Amino acid sequence: MAEAEAAERRVLVAVDESEESMHALSWCLKNIISDKFSDTLLLLYVKPPRAVSTALDGTGTRCYTEAFLFSSDVMLAIEKYGNEVADCVMEKAKKLCSELADVKVETRIENGDARDVICQMADKLGADLLVMGSHGYGLIKRAFLGSVSNHCAQNAKCPVMIVKKPKSTSNSH
Amino acid sequence: MAEAEAAERRVLVAVDESEESMHALSWCLKNIISDKFSDTLLLLYVKPPRAVSTALDGTGTRCYTEAFLFSSDVMLAIEKYGNEVADCVMEKAKKLCSELADVKVETRIENGDARDVICQMADKLGADLLVMGSHGYGLIKRAFLGSVSNHCAQNAKCPVMIVKKPKSTSNSH
Repeated sequence: MAEAEAAERRVLVAVDESEESMHALSWCLKNIISDKFSDTLLLLYVKPPRAVSTALDGTGTRCYTEAFLFSSDVMLAIEKYGNEVADCVMEKAKKLCSELADVKVETRIENGDARDVICQMADKLGADLLVMGSHGYGLIKRAFLGSVSNHCAQNAKCPVMIVKKPKSTSNSH
Repeated sequence: MAEAEAAERRVLVAVDESEESMHALSWCLKNIISDKFSDTLLLLYVKPPRAVSTALDGTGTRCYTEAFLFSSDVMLAIEKYGNEVADCVMEKAKKLCSELADVKVETRIENGDARDVICQMADKLGADLLVMGSHGYGLIKRAFLGSVSNHCAQNAKCPVMIVKKPKSTSNSH
């Protein structure tokens, strides 16, 4: 699968709400996607597991609250919010793709722990390459679970490209 | 630096004695190096620090012995052996480059802890991308120090590409 001298490559990019993930996508479009191959770009967004609320923010101070503390109305609102975030991220990502490269794009939105889901989907979708930003969790969760990119670099079967957003550039994508 | 839409990219590939590192180089030559850019491929081999003997083997059962236990003759022999290994790895890597791509190649051999030296050299040499295999230490040392690729993915300033050798292919480069 990794021996992609063949005509077609499937490049999986894990996207999320972060600037860094859009930077990783942008870097991939400029540096990896090539006319030499018939590339297909697979955009993957992973929503957190339903029992965990991450509705509050994405800056490392997320509140993790068990589902049973909420009424079903609140849960529905959170679910709706989660779907809107997912759609918004995907729209932004697709726009970037159309601006930066002439490439076939497919999108997938999945539920679960990003670390596991990304590795599973890389396998399931037959990715020749996985591209992602270097974080993907807030500081607190990362301290307990380790970074998503580290996990994927170790566990994904295909090559993994980790793209950090340079600190000095604020308008790099 | 990572915004490599410009005409020239500097791609640093960390090579060592492992099959996996040659696979990573091969993958890079086939998938990253492109006529679209004036790429320069920088091959980096890092010899272990001089005070540590890694002369015995590279399978994860390396013996770490303080330099002062050896006579200077033995140390010279170990040093010579280390240089021969470095030259041999570089020759193999350069051969692969000439076989797989038409790309300008530069080589560097450095001394020190691979984890630090690779990150430092990526910075110093102005790398737009760092490519490496997914291990780089034997099992025992990795348990204490963590993997080289994890460290570099977290600490290198440029994007990092980690290429695992597929278990199923024995002749993939």
